[in-house]
Amino acid sequence: MREVFQQELREVQDRLVEISGLVAISIDNATRAFNESNVSLAETVIADDDKIDELTVNLDELAINILARQQPVARDLRIVVSALRISASLERMGDMAEHIAQLARYRFPDKVVPKSLRGTFSELGALDVAIARKLTKLLETEDVSLAEEIRNDDDQIDALHLSVFDKVLGETWKGATVDTVDATLASRYHERFADHAVSIAKKVQYLATGAWIPEVD
Amino acid sequence: MREVFQQELREVQDRLVEISGLVAISIDNATRAFNESNVSLAETVIADDDKIDELTVNLDELAINILARQQPVARDLRIVVSALRISASLERMGDMAEHIAQLARYRFPDKVVPKSLRGTFSELGALDVAIARKLTKLLETEDVSLAEEIRNDDDQIDALHLSVFDKVLGETWKGATVDTVDATLASRYHERFADHAVSIAKKVQYLATGAWIPEVD
Repeated sequence: MREVFQQELREVQDRLVEISGLVAISIDNATRAFNESNVSLAETVIADDDKIDELTVNLDELAINILARQQPVARDLRIVVSALRISASLERMGDMAEHIAQLARYRFPDKVVPKSLRGTFSELGALDVAIARKLTKLLETEDVSLAEEIRNDDDQIDALHLSVFDKVLGETWKGATVDTVDATLASRYHERFADHAVSIAKKVQYLATGAWIPEVD
Repeated sequence: MREVFQQELREVQDRLVEISGLVAISIDNATRAFNESNVSLAETVIADDDKIDELTVNLDELAINILARQQPVARDLRIVVSALRISASLERMGDMAEHIAQLARYRFPDKVVPKSLRGTFSELGALDVAIARKLTKLLETEDVSLAEEIRNDDDQIDALHLSVFDKVLGETWKGATVDTVDATLASRYHERFADHAVSIAKKVQYLATGAWIPEVD
């Protein structure tokens, strides 16, 4: 029984790594679609989100099945419950990638953000991609130093997110109203993407170390 | 054992109803703070979110404890897992109320939105409040007709959310950039609040009827 359970936990972990890998590809595609106004890449991200959704639903079913059949307690139970929560966060990260891609598609053939903000959004995108890749590796290896790195990357994202508002509300802002709307939404999506990654990283860290960090803000 | 379990499920349900009731009060306060630029009411919402967070963490611990001690299967297991997810959604609804209140506080003593959008935000706020109250009653009574009402209210919110963009991007928009940013964020927060309520309503409906609706978008 114990061996079957360990095998099933590995299956859960493998699937989380798989979904996280797909989320990393989607955010990479989404930020490129966004920064380069590449509408076909945006369509790819939007289509791929259905796959991510399907995989998370399947993973949830597997986790609930494990709870029913194996009736885990203590740390084993926490692992399965955490998997359900990690799955929900990955699903939302996929949604954020999709929302960023949708902005690129809506505005096509126009660019989504004016020149003065392109550098900031390139940085935001690159950080989100780096975070998603580190998250995939963290889920695979449980190397908690990656959780620390993800938190540091998220601090940078928060600073960039605030800088978007500073720029948009500053005196030199020459963007049209549509640019203001897009910059506001896109910055929020990038920031939420990273927040979910931090939330997952905390859970993995907790499972690896046993130190519970309540998950609210 | 079975009787103890039923008693514990009632305890879970009571706590969900309690948290949902607090969320309903918070969104009511938040929308009033927002529409009337009432900064002390905004502070109340921000402080009350800590209480909501604490209650959801406690509820999650109770649910995990029930899983460990009672080892429920089949429908009983789904109820406890659903409670964990409903708790997470209620926590996010509290965050949305807090974000709306924060906008009111940031801009004080200025109003958050210009005159031309005040009617729309009054409607959005009233609908969010109505949804939160119906949700509390749904959690209490499992009267699934309320789930239907919540979905209809959400359709209205989605239409109002789109109308905010139409107005902001329309030729008659005279708002400053800060008004555009605030309207964009506030409208998104109102819409997300309702989305979470719909997501919870679906879960309650599923538990009451046994008809599974996968929870992704």
